[in-house]
Amino acid sequence: MKNNSEKNTSWKHRLHEIIYEADTKEGKLFDVILLIAIIASIVLVMLESVKSFDDEYHNFLNISEWIITILFSIEYILRIISIKKPLKYVFSFYGIIDLLSTIPKYLSFIFIGSHHFAALRALRLLRVFRILKLARYVGASNRLLVALKASRAKIAVFLFFVVIVCIILGTIMYMIEGEENGFTSIPRSVYWAIVTLTTVGFGDIAPQTPLGQLIASVIMILGYGIIAIPTGIVSSEISKNDRKIDTNTQACQSCLKEDHKDDSDFCYKCGNKLN
Amino acid sequence: MKNNSEKNTSWKHRLHEIIYEADTKEGKLFDVILLIAIIASIVLVMLESVKSFDDEYHNFLNISEWIITILFSIEYILRIISIKKPLKYVFSFYGIIDLLSTIPKYLSFIFIGSHHFAALRALRLLRVFRILKLARYVGASNRLLVALKASRAKIAVFLFFVVIVCIILGTIMYMIEGEENGFTSIPRSVYWAIVTLTTVGFGDIAPQTPLGQLIASVIMILGYGIIAIPTGIVSSEISKNDRKIDTNTQACQSCLKEDHKDDSDFCYKCGNKLN
Amino acid sequence: MKNNSEKNTSWKHRLHEIIYEADTKEGKLFDVILLIAIIASIVLVMLESVKSFDDEYHNFLNISEWIITILFSIEYILRIISIKKPLKYVFSFYGIIDLLSTIPKYLSFIFIGSHHFAALRALRLLRVFRILKLARYVGASNRLLVALKASRAKIAVFLFFVVIVCIILGTIMYMIEGEENGFTSIPRSVYWAIVTLTTVGFGDIAPQTPLGQLIASVIMILGYGIIAIPTGIVSSEISKNDRKIDTNTQACQSCLKEDHKDDSDFCYKCGNKLN
Amino acid sequence: MKNNSEKNTSWKHRLHEIIYEADTKEGKLFDVILLIAIIASIVLVMLESVKSFDDEYHNFLNISEWIITILFSIEYILRIISIKKPLKYVFSFYGIIDLLSTIPKYLSFIFIGSHHFAALRALRLLRVFRILKLARYVGASNRLLVALKASRAKIAVFLFFVVIVCIILGTIMYMIEGEENGFTSIPRSVYWAIVTLTTVGFGDIAPQTPLGQLIASVIMILGYGIIAIPTGIVSSEISKNDRKIDTNTQACQSCLKEDHKDDSDFCYKCGNKLN
Repeated sequence: MKNNSEKNTSWKHRLHEIIYEADTKEGKLFDVILLIAIIASIVLVMLESVKSFDDEYHNFLNISEWIITILFSIEYILRIISIKKPLKYVFSFYGIIDLLSTIPKYLSFIFIGSHHFAALRALRLLRVFRILKLARYVGASNRLLVALKASRAKIAVFLFFVVIVCIILGTIMYMIEGEENGFTSIPRSVYWAIVTLTTVGFGDIAPQTPLGQLIASVIMILGYGIIAIPTGIVSSEISKNDRKIDTNTQACQSCLKEDHKDDSDFCYKCGNKLN
Repeated sequence: MKNNSEKNTSWKHRLHEIIYEADTKEGKLFDVILLIAIIASIVLVMLESVKSFDDEYHNFLNISEWIITILFSIEYILRIISIKKPLKYVFSFYGIIDLLSTIPKYLSFIFIGSHHFAALRALRLLRVFRILKLARYVGASNRLLVALKASRAKIAVFLFFVVIVCIILGTIMYMIEGEENGFTSIPRSVYWAIVTLTTVGFGDIAPQTPLGQLIASVIMILGYGIIAIPTGIVSSEISKNDRKIDTNTQACQSCLKEDHKDDSDFCYKCGNKLN
Repeated sequence: MKNNSEKNTSWKHRLHEIIYEADTKEGKLFDVILLIAIIASIVLVMLESVKSFDDEYHNFLNISEWIITILFSIEYILRIISIKKPLKYVFSFYGIIDLLSTIPKYLSFIFIGSHHFAALRALRLLRVFRILKLARYVGASNRLLVALKASRAKIAVFLFFVVIVCIILGTIMYMIEGEENGFTSIPRSVYWAIVTLTTVGFGDIAPQTPLGQLIASVIMILGYGIIAIPTGIVSSEISKNDRKIDTNTQACQSCLKEDHKDDSDFCYKCGNKLN
Repeated sequence: MKNNSEKNTSWKHRLHEIIYEADTKEGKLFDVILLIAIIASIVLVMLESVKSFDDEYHNFLNISEWIITILFSIEYILRIISIKKPLKYVFSFYGIIDLLSTIPKYLSFIFIGSHHFAALRALRLLRVFRILKLARYVGASNRLLVALKASRAKIAVFLFFVVIVCIILGTIMYMIEGEENGFTSIPRSVYWAIVTLTTVGFGDIAPQTPLGQLIASVIMILGYGIIAIPTGIVSSEISKNDRKIDTNTQACQSCLKEDHKDDSDFCYKCGNKLN
């Protein structure tokens, strides 16, 4: 019995390794298959929303949807079986997402004719972040994340400033252009200011009065100029990171301090001679 | 009596600390409450400009407006009481803004039916800059400001150049496209050139002739290319600042080496102890 | 006979040098003439697509097309003659492009009235990449390519992230705005999200509901902020390259110091003569 | 007589100093007045093109135009008198611009009713570049120009690449979307591709077919990504310039070489010990 239990555990252990980790060959294969299934499920949701396509290939979409649903169901069950604390997974963020992106098809089976659960399937998009976990293996994205985290505060301050400027400029434009030129309310004018400052420029609302166009010009040149700020922040942060790699990895033999400048002869902490 | 006066002064002193400074716990709390009140007052101005919303919730907006007005009135009075030189505050920039953003509701009470004072309330937006003072506590924005100040001259030269290029190109487009294609005057054509060079592209005016489209293409590629300039300026400025901050200006007393890392105890060149 | 064969070979050898290489004077001249011919052929394809121009100058276009076609035919034959392994060229990428961009006019001669082969002529555009080979002689583009190759992985991760964000935001907008506001399907909404996030902003689809405009604002500010990322990546990569190139990798034989300036004759540290 | 001639020469010399140089107080004043006159003349040309303004203030514009014309005439005559080789000035670039921007009003006097000479007045815009000469005094623009000149080759290669990509993508879009969706000719499609790649996005032409929108998405993401390249080039160039200033200005006493690294102990050229 003991042997059986051990065997059982080791079987679960292997399953856990395959599903939750990506170090083994099988684990990587599982991740890639899951990635393809998630992308396929997203493409299905997309295609179903295209009316002309849905009318013609309704059956194909329906069957594919069932295949995806069954695959996701099996995956969900395996995830619960293979983990030591199933409840922790079930109520975790990804656990709930996994469940919600699996059940809509079953629900549509019970409540016939109901299309409202279809929206739930869009939650599958959040499963894409599982794919992003794969991106971590690409060494490049690690450094990128470090640089982004370091410049987070600065960028937040910058975006906060942008929003305030847009509110002020939007209100001014509302007072200048008025409702007859499409600036029907302050929130709508602020929306226009954001559209303009970020250089998007839909053109659904555009200033008509000379004064309005003058201020719009100022907003545009401002937006064109201050885009330099977040760029400068991230640039310098990435540069700094790259430079850190320029400091050598040698550790001082006396105090074990690292991060010495490349042309250091002595440890900057304890004064011991470096090699 | 003396004691009373002292008590009075200390009471005023405490109030001053709470309202004008942000070092104490109460001071921070006051700032946060004021921040919320200002944001709420701005949201109110915004919502009132949305006609459909105003029609339905007119009473709610009216009462909220009165609450905000009374809160701002109390704050204004407290600010005058707690400061040593009340007149200096009253005629300061923020003093005038504070007054103007408080009185519109009272005025609408006196001059019944007058909506013109509503525009005054938009001045409350300027109070947002008080919030920006809070942003200073975020260390990040300090460095950002230093970099921006350092690159101010370069960016001004760049924007001056952009404006001249837009005037020249706008005039050329006016002569090529003419009034029948929407380029009704030179100022309007210059406005279009700014819209195009800054890559905003509303599309309310667009070139119709082949030659006009050719020149528009040149403007767009130019705008796409020269956006690199302000970005480069700010990037290098921030990089420079970051580099400066990471090393200190202390010179080794033995070999006069500078550019030591901030946490250095020994000269990295000669091994001499640093102060 | 032997002499003749040798003469023949040397004649072929010279032709090969002229056509396939750009080291000799004649080789450069050939490249420049080819460049002009390719550009002329592209301009012809372009002009023929402009209906009003084609109606008026049909004969001129037809004759020019024949001249270009004959020139390209001669070039094609010379390329086959002068190379040692003609089949390798014929079935190479550029061999197929060269053939396909030459034959459409002959085909239109055989199959009278057929316009469908005209599209083939657009393949001439791919010949432009031969011109790009010329760009390699401009030293600048080499460094640029090195920097781009080094930052390829990071930019790919970034663009992958952008696409996922656009899919998620597009789906959200589809659910909020719905078909009545132009967001007729998820793919179309994703298209709109890309148009907005990249700050292009055509305006053919624009959000109408307040909530939709709010989310659009977030997308725009996001797009305005994250454009900093690829810029930062490339900036730091080019900076790194420039720094590397300015110093050589030679180590001083006396003190093993590296990082000497390119025109150094003596070690800047110990004064020892460098090689 | 001799004295008179000397006086005459010195009078001319002083005039030359005032008009052509900006070192003296009077010279600077003259430049500033000229700057104002040029800007005023440009504003006049602009306002005259606004029909509603011209109708109402025709007399004011006419008189102002005459004042500017007379001022420019006096300046032109003084420039000829004060210079040693008048013909050289008359036929120089600025000499011709100065003349052409002065005479239109006189011509309209001779040829009554002629409006065609009005276009000539737009040439005054080129006089603005005289103002740009003033910008040189701002030290900032000097460094900027150095960085731009250094990155000129790289940016040219980049823009050349952008244009080729736009031609290829424009042709593809012409074949996919066709004339019924606004892509009426290849040049127009290339124009659209430039509008899209540079993230301007007028929206006067927009893809309608799903495949067209897919390719448009690729173009937009491409444009969003490669804007990083010119930015990176200029950033690194400015950074490099700033760093050059980091090298010290000490000259080797033995070989007079400059541009030593800050921590150099020996001249990198002749091996002489530095101070």
